[in-house]
Amino acid sequence: MNDYSAPLADMRFALDEAAGLSDLAALPAFESVEPDLVDAILQEAGKLASEVLAPINQPGDRDGCVFENGVVRMPAGFQAAYDELVAGGWISLPFDPAYGGQGLPWTIAMAVQETWHAANMSFGLTPLLTQGAAELLQAHGTADQKDTYLGKLISGAWSGTMNLTEPQAGSDLGAIKASARRDDANASEAYRITGQKIFITYGEHELAENIVHMVLARSPEGPPGTKGLSLFIVPKFLPDENGNPGRRNDLRCVSIENKLGIHASPTCVMSYGDDGGALGYLLGEENRGLAGMFTMMNNARLAVGTQGLGIAERAYQQALAYARERIQSRALDDPEGGPAAIIRHPDVRRNLATMKALTEAMRALIYYTAGQLDRAKSAPDEAARDQSQARLELMTPVAKAWCTDRGVEVASLGVQVHGGMGFIEETGAAQHFRDSRINPIYEGTNGIQALDLATRKLSRDGGAAVRELIADIKATDEALQRSPDSDLKATGGALGEARFVLDAATDWLAGTLTGDLSKAAAVATPYLNLFGTVAGGWQLGREALAARARLDAGSDDARFLAAKIKTARFYAENLLPQAAAEAVVVMTGAESTLALADEDF
Amino acid sequence: MNDYSAPLADMRFALDEAAGLSDLAALPAFESVEPDLVDAILQEAGKLASEVLAPINQPGDRDGCVFENGVVRMPAGFQAAYDELVAGGWISLPFDPAYGGQGLPWTIAMAVQETWHAANMSFGLTPLLTQGAAELLQAHGTADQKDTYLGKLISGAWSGTMNLTEPQAGSDLGAIKASARRDDANASEAYRITGQKIFITYGEHELAENIVHMVLARSPEGPPGTKGLSLFIVPKFLPDENGNPGRRNDLRCVSIENKLGIHASPTCVMSYGDDGGALGYLLGEENRGLAGMFTMMNNARLAVGTQGLGIAERAYQQALAYARERIQSRALDDPEGGPAAIIRHPDVRRNLATMKALTEAMRALIYYTAGQLDRAKSAPDEAARDQSQARLELMTPVAKAWCTDRGVEVASLGVQVHGGMGFIEETGAAQHFRDSRINPIYEGTNGIQALDLATRKLSRDGGAAVRELIADIKATDEALQRSPDSDLKATGGALGEARFVLDAATDWLAGTLTGDLSKAAAVATPYLNLFGTVAGGWQLGREALAARARLDAGSDDARFLAAKIKTARFYAENLLPQAAAEAVVVMTGAESTLALADEDF
Repeated sequence: MNDYSAPLADMRFALDEAAGLSDLAALPAFESVEPDLVDAILQEAGKLASEVLAPINQPGDRDGCVFENGVVRMPAGFQAAYDELVAGGWISLPFDPAYGGQGLPWTIAMAVQETWHAANMSFGLTPLLTQGAAELLQAHGTADQKDTYLGKLISGAWSGTMNLTEPQAGSDLGAIKASARRDDANASEAYRITGQKIFITYGEHELAENIVHMVLARSPEGPPGTKGLSLFIVPKFLPDENGNPGRRNDLRCVSIENKLGIHASPTCVMSYGDDGGALGYLLGEENRGLAGMFTMMNNARLAVGTQGLGIAERAYQQALAYARERIQSRALDDPEGGPAAIIRHPDVRRNLATMKALTEAMRALIYYTAGQLDRAKSAPDEAARDQSQARLELMTPVAKAWCTDRGVEVASLGVQVHGGMGFIEETGAAQHFRDSRINPIYEGTNGIQALDLATRKLSRDGGAAVRELIADIKATDEALQRSPDSDLKATGGALGEARFVLDAATDWLAGTLTGDLSKAAAVATPYLNLFGTVAGGWQLGREALAARARLDAGSDDARFLAAKIKTARFYAENLLPQAAAEAVVVMTGAESTLALADEDF
Repeated sequence: MNDYSAPLADMRFALDEAAGLSDLAALPAFESVEPDLVDAILQEAGKLASEVLAPINQPGDRDGCVFENGVVRMPAGFQAAYDELVAGGWISLPFDPAYGGQGLPWTIAMAVQETWHAANMSFGLTPLLTQGAAELLQAHGTADQKDTYLGKLISGAWSGTMNLTEPQAGSDLGAIKASARRDDANASEAYRITGQKIFITYGEHELAENIVHMVLARSPEGPPGTKGLSLFIVPKFLPDENGNPGRRNDLRCVSIENKLGIHASPTCVMSYGDDGGALGYLLGEENRGLAGMFTMMNNARLAVGTQGLGIAERAYQQALAYARERIQSRALDDPEGGPAAIIRHPDVRRNLATMKALTEAMRALIYYTAGQLDRAKSAPDEAARDQSQARLELMTPVAKAWCTDRGVEVASLGVQVHGGMGFIEETGAAQHFRDSRINPIYEGTNGIQALDLATRKLSRDGGAAVRELIADIKATDEALQRSPDSDLKATGGALGEARFVLDAATDWLAGTLTGDLSKAAAVATPYLNLFGTVAGGWQLGREALAARARLDAGSDDARFLAAKIKTARFYAENLLPQAAAEAVVVMTGAESTLALADEDF
């Protein structure tokens, strides 16, 4: 009942049609990406997820991590699973072959991440963070730093973490106090790091032989605020002359948090420099730490969006299995029949259809955005890279926030489909609901994502990136409306209306931004919801067009393709209508939001 | 940070203006209801809630109930709190003075319930169920039964439970197998009950000296389905000749569930008749058990809606306190200032305003519906009783489902306002999120409520009840639009549009019901969402009119009243727009929902 099997057909379809895998594979950087290879990767990833990671998900939640004498003990099975992940080279997929990477597109790596997060979100966080740290090092590390750390991270022999948050510095990184003093007595570029960091995911564990902490800190002489932040590599064990873990660095885990979910992911309070200062090595330029961090942010935020997708897929599979098995009441369309499986009841079917449509829309959106990430890095033509970079930066907050909010929604529907059993922990549906709830919070809260979209992303280049996206959506809705297929035509009609209101709300917001930033900020969240709802419908519309084309070309996968078309129409008629409501809120809701004074609450 | 104080000002305002307390007090049945008395009751209830119930909420969640040797041990402090509840006579408020009740309106009892659920949802369930059992007995019991049980329940000396669900019979009560055989060897009207019941809230505990189980079961000779169900009083201890708990009956708790939330409320698997049959006494007529149960259903469903309200109020208070204290980033409207409390940030303010507006809308809706319950019981005029009964039956599924879904939404926003701290159990916000999630499930899932509204309630009397409600909403939106106050005018405009789409969607649904029940059922949930959204806006609109009138009359409570008006406008411009989207889904979404075949999932 609580099994997971990777939805290979829809994953492959979304890679092909939403991300445009064949175009990606045509880029010189990805010559090795053959269709057979992709299928093999997905299949093996699915196997690891369903056979190794999924079975330890519920026990891991129940038993959690234990902190004792400065050491984090992971739940049973996590070490073996980690060893298998490393042995399979799974962390290495998107990295530089010169350091042991496989040089594959991030798009494929993100599809593989989906299977980790769906199978076991707590487990998936360690390779997610290690990939983030590797990405940071690959972009900003010196040759020496790469020689020392990059290969170890790419293989998974060592794991990585991100150390940003402090008690007084959450969304506001400018308030970071952790300090870094140049230590001339040591190697060149060495610093002594002191300070406390909180909410450090996998800050301590013994799955890997070393942990490479990427730490934001400031030097005493630097400017205040974010402009004085630098990024440091702070390993748990200092590498010895042979590159092996040597002397223990001056850092430790103080405690781990008792959380609503992801119980098998240790969330650590880390203390640096209790004994004079942890040795750290400057990564990138001094006082440019935040800029450095931003190079990996698109990737990390997309990865958290992928967690939203993964947990939604898992919750959907479980609810669907239950709805097929649970017998209760007669079906309305068969009043003389016996009691029916609850999937036959229209209201349950609406829940399942909503879960399915949202999950597939998220998948298409995530893979599409990952495709832009690869193009932005690897397109041979600079103009093409810039264009993809602009699209990537526009879509990233949407992929993060919309997919994680929808992840919670789908997990909650999953609980509901189970009725009373959904509230019982043994069933497993409640775990998905609990686990999913972190995604809208970490890696920049969804409020922060909305502000990023509605202010920074919208105002850049006079709003050109949004205009181009809306033009692309228009091309899709018009193509749909031209189709002789009545499902596509209806989907296109609804998408056209939604695109129209997105356009109008964008105009309103762009006009307001320059005059009254508070007003714009007051409707940032409904704008992001609107944007995500329309973008999800657009992606399903693109997939429906592709499905129709494959059917017309005589594909033998008719049932899957026909279901894609029906799912797009369900989304268009049952979920896209929210776009108009969100647009009304964007255009008329700011004043009454700001009208409530502090004392009115 | 995790304190609770009863929102006495808004509670009293909603009693006066939403429920119409002065009209209620004018009914002959409620002669004793003086304004001073109501204030005293609310104040004392608030004190019990904040000083006794709230402090044991988080420890109760952490420690949970323990089941050992057939006995449930409650968390620390629960016995003392229960004793204080009983000593204060709090359970007795709405019951017959002939049996020790206080003869007060249910409206006031429901306001008191709000404080229990807000302070401690797990605790609140035991008086909630005892009141339900007392209601059942008061309506259907014989004089002997009332003499034996009613006074004990009303005082709280004994507690009550509802035993409906069995493993194969959840939403479908017709599938109940528990059997009741007439036992001539015993007292008249005695039966032997055997069978297993699950999800029995407070099925076993020792807070009270006896537990009176109300059990649905069938006699072997009765018709199949719901028409063969009878209701039985099955006490844990059989009353002796003096009416005290005597011999142990043949029933036991087999186990308790490990749940997502309400850890301090024991959810029991009950076994009846392991040793030949538990003694039970027929309550009401044979084979009319379900009809009997329905007499208390409006009350019980409203009470669960009140839990949604209570948990929302609690989550709001906690998030608000955090938002006032937590300092992070400069305010957009004060870029030269220092870091500000996060309540100053427009996106956080939107979350808080949404929480506040939804909570106040729920409160008005619940109290309004409770007012109808009292009128339906106690209006001297039969036509008035009938009218209130019709309104009550219409609003009950809305109050239950809409308020419980909104309860989860508000609790989730509460987590979000806390950022990373929201995910840490110690903070307490996560508990509200977990606790709230049961409300859309029990006492009839929200899907069942939606079907009840969209089929049974809508089709009764040719839809007259809905039409009358819509006419009332129209009167309110027109009064608002006529106001010279621009906030009221804007609120009325938005409410008028929402009422218009509710009308249109109702027409569509009424027309579809007769032709295609599956289609109607496929959009029952969006119809209930639409209905609830509009009804909530209507209630806040009514309250805004009343607030304006009080201001115009020179009330010295200007800040509170002005905030009510601003809150209504916030709701109208930020939440009511969803009504149009839901109406579109009602009118166009059914076909694509049903188009997905079983194999398409």
